[in-house]
Amino acid sequence: MSTLLESYAAGRWFRAADDGEPLLDAATGEEVARLSSRGLDIAAMVRHARETGGPALRSLTFHERAALLKALAKHLSERKEELYALSVRTGATSRDTAVDVDGGIGTLFSYASKGVRELPNDTVFLDGGLERLGKGGTFVGQHLYTSRPGVALQINAFNFPVWGMLEKLAPAFLAGLPSIVKPASQTAYLTELAVRLIVGSGILPEGTIQLVAGSAAGLLDELTVQDSVAFTGSAHTAGILRRHPNVLDGGVLLGVEADSLNCSVLGPDVRPDDPEFDLFVKGVVTEMTVKAGQKCTAIRRALVPSAMADQVVEALAARLARVTVGDPRNPDVRMGALAGLGQREEVRKAVEALRAGADVVAGDLAGGPLLDGDATRGAFMTPLLLRARPGATEPHEVEPFGPVSTVLTYDTLDEAVALAARGRGSLVASVVTHDPEVARSVVLGLAPWHGRVLVLDRDDAAESTGHGSPLPVLVHGGPGRAGGGEELGGVRGVLHHMQRTAVQASPDLLTAVTGRWTTGAARTDSDVHPFRKSLAELRIGDTIASPPRTVSLDDIEHFAEFTGDTFYAHTDPEAAARNPLFGGIVAHGYLVVSLAAGLFVDPAPGPVLANFGVDALRFLTPVKAGDAIAVTLTVKQITPRSGAGHGEVRWDAVVTNQEGRAVATYDVLTLVAKTWDENAP
Amino acid sequence: MSTLLESYAAGRWFRAADDGEPLLDAATGEEVARLSSRGLDIAAMVRHARETGGPALRSLTFHERAALLKALAKHLSERKEELYALSVRTGATSRDTAVDVDGGIGTLFSYASKGVRELPNDTVFLDGGLERLGKGGTFVGQHLYTSRPGVALQINAFNFPVWGMLEKLAPAFLAGLPSIVKPASQTAYLTELAVRLIVGSGILPEGTIQLVAGSAAGLLDELTVQDSVAFTGSAHTAGILRRHPNVLDGGVLLGVEADSLNCSVLGPDVRPDDPEFDLFVKGVVTEMTVKAGQKCTAIRRALVPSAMADQVVEALAARLARVTVGDPRNPDVRMGALAGLGQREEVRKAVEALRAGADVVAGDLAGGPLLDGDATRGAFMTPLLLRARPGATEPHEVEPFGPVSTVLTYDTLDEAVALAARGRGSLVASVVTHDPEVARSVVLGLAPWHGRVLVLDRDDAAESTGHGSPLPVLVHGGPGRAGGGEELGGVRGVLHHMQRTAVQASPDLLTAVTGRWTTGAARTDSDVHPFRKSLAELRIGDTIASPPRTVSLDDIEHFAEFTGDTFYAHTDPEAAARNPLFGGIVAHGYLVVSLAAGLFVDPAPGPVLANFGVDALRFLTPVKAGDAIAVTLTVKQITPRSGAGHGEVRWDAVVTNQEGRAVATYDVLTLVAKTWDENAP
Repeated sequence: MSTLLESYAAGRWFRAADDGEPLLDAATGEEVARLSSRGLDIAAMVRHARETGGPALRSLTFHERAALLKALAKHLSERKEELYALSVRTGATSRDTAVDVDGGIGTLFSYASKGVRELPNDTVFLDGGLERLGKGGTFVGQHLYTSRPGVALQINAFNFPVWGMLEKLAPAFLAGLPSIVKPASQTAYLTELAVRLIVGSGILPEGTIQLVAGSAAGLLDELTVQDSVAFTGSAHTAGILRRHPNVLDGGVLLGVEADSLNCSVLGPDVRPDDPEFDLFVKGVVTEMTVKAGQKCTAIRRALVPSAMADQVVEALAARLARVTVGDPRNPDVRMGALAGLGQREEVRKAVEALRAGADVVAGDLAGGPLLDGDATRGAFMTPLLLRARPGATEPHEVEPFGPVSTVLTYDTLDEAVALAARGRGSLVASVVTHDPEVARSVVLGLAPWHGRVLVLDRDDAAESTGHGSPLPVLVHGGPGRAGGGEELGGVRGVLHHMQRTAVQASPDLLTAVTGRWTTGAARTDSDVHPFRKSLAELRIGDTIASPPRTVSLDDIEHFAEFTGDTFYAHTDPEAAARNPLFGGIVAHGYLVVSLAAGLFVDPAPGPVLANFGVDALRFLTPVKAGDAIAVTLTVKQITPRSGAGHGEVRWDAVVTNQEGRAVATYDVLTLVAKTWDENAP
Repeated sequence: MSTLLESYAAGRWFRAADDGEPLLDAATGEEVARLSSRGLDIAAMVRHARETGGPALRSLTFHERAALLKALAKHLSERKEELYALSVRTGATSRDTAVDVDGGIGTLFSYASKGVRELPNDTVFLDGGLERLGKGGTFVGQHLYTSRPGVALQINAFNFPVWGMLEKLAPAFLAGLPSIVKPASQTAYLTELAVRLIVGSGILPEGTIQLVAGSAAGLLDELTVQDSVAFTGSAHTAGILRRHPNVLDGGVLLGVEADSLNCSVLGPDVRPDDPEFDLFVKGVVTEMTVKAGQKCTAIRRALVPSAMADQVVEALAARLARVTVGDPRNPDVRMGALAGLGQREEVRKAVEALRAGADVVAGDLAGGPLLDGDATRGAFMTPLLLRARPGATEPHEVEPFGPVSTVLTYDTLDEAVALAARGRGSLVASVVTHDPEVARSVVLGLAPWHGRVLVLDRDDAAESTGHGSPLPVLVHGGPGRAGGGEELGGVRGVLHHMQRTAVQASPDLLTAVTGRWTTGAARTDSDVHPFRKSLAELRIGDTIASPPRTVSLDDIEHFAEFTGDTFYAHTDPEAAARNPLFGGIVAHGYLVVSLAAGLFVDPAPGPVLANFGVDALRFLTPVKAGDAIAVTLTVKQITPRSGAGHGEVRWDAVVTNQEGRAVATYDVLTLVAKTWDENAP
C-alpha cells in the first residue's frame, strides 16, 4: 500500500487513523498515495490560524511579509525537481508542469516584488487621496485598508495542485491572513509535497499555512464574519458553498472561480495568409492540449467569421492531427493524460451533450494512438474539435473540462460579442486581430462579460503569454457563470482580503492613525535642518519653512534664455496679457520649483542622498515679477527599505506667495540614509 | 380617499386597478396616500431599462452623465419646498428633513463634481498603471472598467425616502446603469413625489429611472448576470434576497446594507471637564433623536470607561430630559414621530428584549409629555437610555430601530475593541478622544469591523458632520451583520457598478482600445509642432522629438548659483564623488526638466494656454556634465472640458541621454484651447 497523505494541522503533521482512499497515477493507473482526514480536528486548525498564525503575520509589515514570500519562492525554486518528479503522476507533461510549478513559484516572486514596490513598509494601506470634509480644513477623511483578524480557507481544483495553492496563498499572506489549504483529492499528493517543502523550510510563521489532506467537511461551520473562503472548482460545489448558513447569514466572504465557457474570436480582418490566422489556430490548439484541456481558462468556443469557418476548421484539424498523446514520461508526448478515468468519463458525457448541437470534425471519440501509456488504466483521450450547427445552444451551456473545443460562426462584430455573452460571464476571452477598430469594438463589447481579455496580433505574439495563462499582476476571475470572484491582479488581490474603512478625523489625529502626515496637521520646526537628520532621526511632521525670495522680471527673462523655454507667457508682455489665465508675464512653473529647491535644500553632504522624483505637482496661482515666494517642506511619509542602507522619504511641499496663497503644491521624493555620522570619513 | 400613488414604468405613469393600502401620517394617523402596484408589468420595466435607458446612458461620457446629475440637483433644489412640505408627514422634523432632502440633493451635487474631476470624459475608466508583461515591451496589460449592460434595482428603506433613492441612483447613473427604484411602503409617497419631479424635469434620459410604487414581488425573477440589486433594510429581508436563485446561481450582484449595532467609544483619556466629554454626550443624544433614532447609522451602544459610567449616564439623562417630543409641525419639537405605529411596536419589542440584560436609566417606557401630536394615533415615544448589566449579550444582538441606546463599560482599550466587535460588523463607529495613541489604537482595532470610523475631538468638532451621517465622498456600508455591502465613497461607488477587466495587448492595440496613448505605441511626427494644434486637431500619439542639448558643467554651476540650490552633488566634486548614487557632479533634476521644456516648447502664442502641472516625475539616470539630453513629448490623453473653451492634454515626456537611456520620465499637463485661429486678433 502507498503512503497515506498527512494534513498539517495546528503545528504538527496529522495522520488519519484509517487507510484512506487510493489516488491513482493518471497515466498508469498505479496507486500514488492514499487520502484521509478522518479524525482531523478542524476546529483546532481554525483556532490555531486565528490565535497563532494571524497575530504573527499581522505583527509584520507588508515589506516583511513580502520578504518571506521571496525567501519561500527561492526555497521552492531550489527544490522544484522534487515537485517536477511527482507532477508527472498527475498526467502532466513537462510543459504542463512548468505552468503549475514554475507558474506557482513565479506568482510568489511577483507578490514579493509588488509587496515591496506598491505597498508601504507598514500594516495599513491608504486608499486614494485625502477628502476635505469641511471648509476650514479641520475635518478630513481618508480611506484605508486594514487586515481582517480572520482565516482564509482556500479550496482548490485538481488541475493546478501547486499554482492553485500558491496563487491564493500569496495575496492572503501579504494581506495578513493565515491560510488553510484544502486541495482537490485527485492530485492532493502534489500539494501535500509542496506544503511539506514550505513547512520544512521554516520560512513562514507557524500557523500561517495549514493543510487539509482529505475532506473539507465541517470547515465552513467553523468560520465567521472576518473569515473568507476562496473556491476554485465546479459551479455545483460553488452552489453548495453559497448556501452554507455562515455564508448566507454569517458574514463569511466567499469568492468563487467556477465553470467558464471562454471564447476566442478571430477578427473579420484576418486573411488566411496573415500571421494572425496562424496565431488563432495555434492558440486554440494550445488551449485544447495544455493540461489536456483541463484549464478553467481554456478556449471552449472558437468564434470565426462565417466565410472563414471551413478554412479555420481545416487548419485546426491539421494541427490537432500532429498532437501526440500518451504517457507524459515520454518526452515526445505533447498531451498527457486527464487527471483520472472519472474525469475522462465526465468529459465524454459533456461531449455527448455537445453533440446535440455540434458535430465532431476532428479527433476520434473512441480514442487514438498512444505514445506509451496504458490505454486501459490511463485516462487518455484525443483532442476533439466540434463545429456547431446553426443556432445551437449547447456550446454556450456545456463545459467539457478536457481537450475539447467547438467552432461557432458569426457574421458581424455585434453578433460575435452577443455569442460571447451567451457564456453568461467568463474568465477570459481573446481577440485575434491586427485592426485597431476591431480591437476596440470587440474588447469593449466583451469586457463587461470577462475578467481578462487578450488581444493577440503579430506585434505581441512573441511575448504573449497566451489566452489561458492568468498572470499574477492581472486580475483572474469573471462575472456570472465564471463565479463572480476576482483573484490576483497584484495589489488588488491583496486588498480583496482586507477591509476598507473611511476614517474621519482632525488632521492631527488622522496623522496619528495613518502614520502619514496629513495636510493641516501640526508641523515641527526643529533646530536642525531636516536634511541633516537620518532616517532614524526624522519624524513625521518635521518641517523646514524657508524665508521668502523675490522673483524678478530679470529672473524670468534670464531663465527663459538660459533654458530655452521662451514661451510667450514668460517673454512677450503683450501676448502674455492676452492669455486668459495669466494676463501678463508669469514665471515658469519650472523656475518656481527650481527656486523652491534652492530655498529648502541644505547643501552640505548629509543623510539625504538624492531627490529621485516629484509627484502630483500642480501650479495653482501664477507667479508674477515682484512676487516673493517661500516654501514649506514637511516630512509626509518615511519608508525604510529592508536590506538597504537607506529609505524613501516623501515630503509635502507647498510654495506660497507674499499673500500666503499657494502657488504650487507637490510631493518631493528623496532617498535618505538610515544612519549618518557627520564625522565619518 | 387619498391619492393612489403611481409607478413610473416603461415611459408612462401607471395606476393600479385596485384602491391599494393606506399610508398614514406618522404624527396624526391621517391617511396620506394609498399604495398598490397590482397589474404592473415588471418584465416590461426591466426590458425598458435594458433596451432604452441603458443604451441612452452608455452613449454618454462620464462628464455628460455628471452634467445631467448637476442639472437634476439644481432642479430639485429649486423645488425642494414641495418635498419639505410632504416630508413632515413621515414624522420628520425640519432637521430630519434636511438630512433626507438636502442630503440627497447634496449627494447628486457631489457625484456631479466627482464625475467631472475624477473620471475621464469617456466611457471607459482606466484602473491603475500599465503592466509590462514582457521584457521587450511589445506585450502590456491594463485594467479598465466598463459599464455593465444591465439594470440596477434599488430597494430602499423607509427612513430616508429621498436621500436613500438618490444615494443609490447617482453612482449607478454615473456608471451607465439605468435604475429601477423600489421605496419602502411607509414613506413611498415622498419618493414618488421626488421621482415625479425628476421625470417631470425631463433631464434624465428616458428609461434611466423607473419607480415601483408598491410590491417588489417578481422583480428579481427578471434579473440576470449583468444586473444588480442594492438593498437597504432588515437582515431578514436581506436573507430572502440572498436566497433568490438568480442571486445564488444566476450571477445577479447583490449589495446589502442591513442591521447594524454601531457604537461610540469614549476614550479613557477624557475627563468630565474636557470638551470631548460633552462632544460624546451630545453625539449620543443627537444620534438617538435625529429621525427618532430610525437611522441605520445611529449609536446603539455607548462604550465608556467603567470609572466614567455614572457621570456619563447622568449627563446623558440630563440632556435627554430636555428633548421635546411631538408633532414635527411644531417648531419647538426636537424629536418627531416614528414612521408608524407598527414601527413603534417593533422598537418596544426590541426594548423588552434588551431589558433582559440592561436597565432603563432615562426616559419613560410608557411615553412622556407631547408637544402637540396625537398620543393615540401618532407613533411617538420618548428616547430611552439603557445601561447594560455586566456580561450582557443583548446589547450586541438586538437592534432597536428607534430612539434607544445602551451604555456599556470597558476597562481597557482592547476590551473596548472586543466589545465593538461583538456587533459582528457595523456601518460606523466613533471614538471620542484627544489622545493620538488612543486614536490610533482604537481606530485600527475597529477598522476591520467597520465601513467608517469617526474620530471626534475639540479640533474637528465644529466642522464634523457627526457619527450618523454617511457622506457621498466616503464609503457607506459595513462587513458582516451590516450586510457586507459598500456604497458611495465617490468614484468607488461608481466602480462597484462596473466590471473590471484586465486587457492584454500590444501597445498599439491597447492604445486603440483605451483611447489613451500607451508607452511603446506608435508616435506620429507631424509637420506641425503639436503646440500649434488646437484640441480639435490634436490626436493621441502626436509627438515632438527634440534635438539634443548638451549639459555643461557651466550650466550646472550656473543653475546652482541662480536658483540657490547648491546641494553638494551639483557643486562639490569631491563630496559628489563620495555619493553612492552619483559618483560625481550631476545636473539638478529641476535643471533637466527645465531644459527639457526649453527643448519642447513652441514659444509663439497658440492653443496651448498653460502648463498646469506635472505627474509622476522620476529621475532614472544621473545627468553629468557633457551629457546631451533630448526630450520626446507625446499626446497621451485628451480631455475636453464641457462648457469651457479648452480641455486638458496629458503629454508623455521622456528625457533621454546621448546613449538613448531614459534620464527622466513624467507626464506634462496642459490646458489647450478647443479651437484656435492664428489670424484672430
